[in-house]
Amino acid sequence: MAVRLLSKLRNSCNSSLDFSLKTRQFVCVSFFSRESRCNITTSSTASANGVAKPRIDSSAEVNTKPKTGILLLNMGGPEATTDVHDFLLRLFSDRDLMVLPAQSKMAAWIARRRTPKIQEQYHKIGGGSPIKMWTEIQGEGMVNLLDEMCPDTAPHKFYIGFRYVNPLTEDALDQMEKDGIERAVAFTQYPQYSCSTTGSSLNAIYRHYKEKGYRPPMKWSVIDRWPTHPGLVKAFAENVKTELLKFPADAQKDVVILFSAHSLPMKVVERGDPYPQEVAATVQRVMETLNTSHPYRLVWQSKVGPMSWLGPQTEDAIKGLGRKGHKNVLLVPIAFTSDHIETLHELDIEYSEVAHEAGIENIRRAASLNDSPTFIHVSEAVIRCLFYHHLSDTNLSFRNCLSSSTVTEQFDFAFVVLNLRSLEPFVSSVPPPQNSSEAMADVVKHHLESGVNCSRQLPLRCPLCVNPTCGPAKEFFLNEKM
Amino acid sequence: MAVRLLSKLRNSCNSSLDFSLKTRQFVCVSFFSRESRCNITTSSTASANGVAKPRIDSSAEVNTKPKTGILLLNMGGPEATTDVHDFLLRLFSDRDLMVLPAQSKMAAWIARRRTPKIQEQYHKIGGGSPIKMWTEIQGEGMVNLLDEMCPDTAPHKFYIGFRYVNPLTEDALDQMEKDGIERAVAFTQYPQYSCSTTGSSLNAIYRHYKEKGYRPPMKWSVIDRWPTHPGLVKAFAENVKTELLKFPADAQKDVVILFSAHSLPMKVVERGDPYPQEVAATVQRVMETLNTSHPYRLVWQSKVGPMSWLGPQTEDAIKGLGRKGHKNVLLVPIAFTSDHIETLHELDIEYSEVAHEAGIENIRRAASLNDSPTFIHVSEAVIRCLFYHHLSDTNLSFRNCLSSSTVTEQFDFAFVVLNLRSLEPFVSSVPPPQNSSEAMADVVKHHLESGVNCSRQLPLRCPLCVNPTCGPAKEFFLNEKM
Repeated sequence: MAVRLLSKLRNSCNSSLDFSLKTRQFVCVSFFSRESRCNITTSSTASANGVAKPRIDSSAEVNTKPKTGILLLNMGGPEATTDVHDFLLRLFSDRDLMVLPAQSKMAAWIARRRTPKIQEQYHKIGGGSPIKMWTEIQGEGMVNLLDEMCPDTAPHKFYIGFRYVNPLTEDALDQMEKDGIERAVAFTQYPQYSCSTTGSSLNAIYRHYKEKGYRPPMKWSVIDRWPTHPGLVKAFAENVKTELLKFPADAQKDVVILFSAHSLPMKVVERGDPYPQEVAATVQRVMETLNTSHPYRLVWQSKVGPMSWLGPQTEDAIKGLGRKGHKNVLLVPIAFTSDHIETLHELDIEYSEVAHEAGIENIRRAASLNDSPTFIHVSEAVIRCLFYHHLSDTNLSFRNCLSSSTVTEQFDFAFVVLNLRSLEPFVSSVPPPQNSSEAMADVVKHHLESGVNCSRQLPLRCPLCVNPTCGPAKEFFLNEKM
Repeated sequence: MAVRLLSKLRNSCNSSLDFSLKTRQFVCVSFFSRESRCNITTSSTASANGVAKPRIDSSAEVNTKPKTGILLLNMGGPEATTDVHDFLLRLFSDRDLMVLPAQSKMAAWIARRRTPKIQEQYHKIGGGSPIKMWTEIQGEGMVNLLDEMCPDTAPHKFYIGFRYVNPLTEDALDQMEKDGIERAVAFTQYPQYSCSTTGSSLNAIYRHYKEKGYRPPMKWSVIDRWPTHPGLVKAFAENVKTELLKFPADAQKDVVILFSAHSLPMKVVERGDPYPQEVAATVQRVMETLNTSHPYRLVWQSKVGPMSWLGPQTEDAIKGLGRKGHKNVLLVPIAFTSDHIETLHELDIEYSEVAHEAGIENIRRAASLNDSPTFIHVSEAVIRCLFYHHLSDTNLSFRNCLSSSTVTEQFDFAFVVLNLRSLEPFVSSVPPPQNSSEAMADVVKHHLESGVNCSRQLPLRCPLCVNPTCGPAKEFFLNEKM
């Protein structure tokens, strides 16, 4: 339905609307007038594409020097298939993530070898990872809320610190310094802490300053985990509920929920990595919020290589449920806040095939938090205003599609959210619902008010940690004076 | 201190006080007048030992036919070293727990081979497992509370259904039938569900009726898990707090908490056994209750054999913390409600040595829930009355010892709680605090009121389950009409 709708939209649009993948970033930038608040400027793309300037003047914001910088940490993903090689090279070179013999050579070899296959996967999900887009949307929503909620630390500005693609963490740190940030918060976008993810990002911040040879000019603190934050849990639970309602009415009571998180090598688990425990805690809280409406299991996806990884593997669990006669399965990505290749390709495409081969009739995937109510409500209102004659008969179906798990629909949808700032008068009546930005803002607010450097968990290295950087990196954050 | 005190007590006691291990069961029986409420009678032991009859007449209770039977499920442990062989034989023969080639022969061989070593371990912890004693105490406290809280289903009677020692589950089922129980609740004493533990016990109930060839005359339902019950979490958290205060004052802030649970073979984990997720959920809730006062990890103990088990192993984690310079570690058994060989020997004796060798100066173990406030308060009051002249200078220290992790103290203490019923007038002024019996009674009360057969989780077999009994056993409980 959404695909057909998009096709209609494309045909009816004037020349200022460019639906190519390249402009996807700008589309969202305009929506939130992001150029005044984020370190990645895309205005040249904007004018090159001939998109009208936002009507609302943001010059006042441009001149406001940010006081508090929130660095959103994540691994990132290639925005285009041409970025895949460099993404993989950085990933396999990361010694906080994995230690390989002759790592620089091995990483180059593996990256070269895996690039075509991964490019093909990104091609299938629309040509690139949407993670930057979602992070920008979430970040912008978050700082807007923070400016209201925490006037003492305002203005807030968000930065994106990716580990394996631009904007890289190191570049964001330089930008924060240039911007004269006084108070910096490293805010992991992985709700559950793993040494492979958040740990790697924190080590990167530590190394950056170590290589520069000076203490940072701003005060740093860390939000290193938030596995059971009420807003996070509520958002997950709501997405599960929404998706459950999309199963055929007579099948809804028979759905088995599989919470799926990225697996870890058992070698990492056995060192004492806290991730499995924290993921399990999120799952429990979400199911309690849902009053354990359905039976469920926590399963683990994305194992690679011959080594032993934490199981059960999501794929095996799906096959097993199929063999036991289950016909309805809901997959819930529980360890990421926005879509990525593991949701859009692995869960949506690969496991969907696996499920159907195993005899499962309905397999759905709960939307990631990117797909927040605000985003949907605002966009829907705009689209209704803009393309009313096209939407009159399809609006409801389109809305239903927005939180669907079908990749192309979500992706195409992003193209539609264009230059929304210029349409602000039309959307001001949309009520602001609880969304992922609100959850994030609430996490940061409480962190800023707490006056602590980090959680009480962060300073404890894994009992069997062998990474020499982890000790000094943790010290680095502990030694900051709040 | 307690050992010295016990020595004093022994010397000052009259002939009706028998401190031998054999009478330990009776001691507690008398305390709660258990002979009127439980299926294991020990009155002959009582009279043989010349213990005075309880002053309070319990004949009224004896004649009251129980309506609701609560079957407390657990694996049990050998009460004396002479029971060790049979315990091991049953354990290694349990195909719900493990599948071995030529299992009956192999089980006999392993049991014979391991008996001396395990006997030695039980010898070190006082000659036998205290699990039956604690279960009786908890059970009696629970049914007393339930009679008040749930008059509609009263009188309640508890039964013990052990898997590998007397009282065996099968015998308890026969007894419940003889007693004319109308409503039966299988209440697992493992807060977190594993197919190896609760699953095995439920399969045993199913098999019992299948072999008899008839549906049970009473209505059955199951409390199959309670990993985050508020009372359970509170009891764990209180025991952690109590134990933290026993570290040297200047070391208390540096304590690392290791939650330790019995591990599982990875083969079981990979089938989708829900246990690791549920244990993690308990840990999270306990730490949240403690406002994450200290850094912690969830670790796994008791791996045996050459296969891969879930880690990190508790022993390795202790060694690793020692290598990293930690001096203070608190072990918290998180997956059992009462003491057993894994707490009393493995944690208290084995790992204590490991810790000291690794340079850890203070290693303590949080008391199990057996060590409930009621138990301590009541007993303490009685002892104070009885032996006041001996206790005047040692009372406070003795009290402190009661929830200590030192095995012999806890064990000796059990000997002291003798014939308490006859001393009721002295103890009636003791306030009834929140304890493990209260938590258990609350779990049962809510279950009885809910009208459900079991949790929504129970009917879902593990995605990769290979046990042919699990399907029909779950059906058995699902088909009961509430």
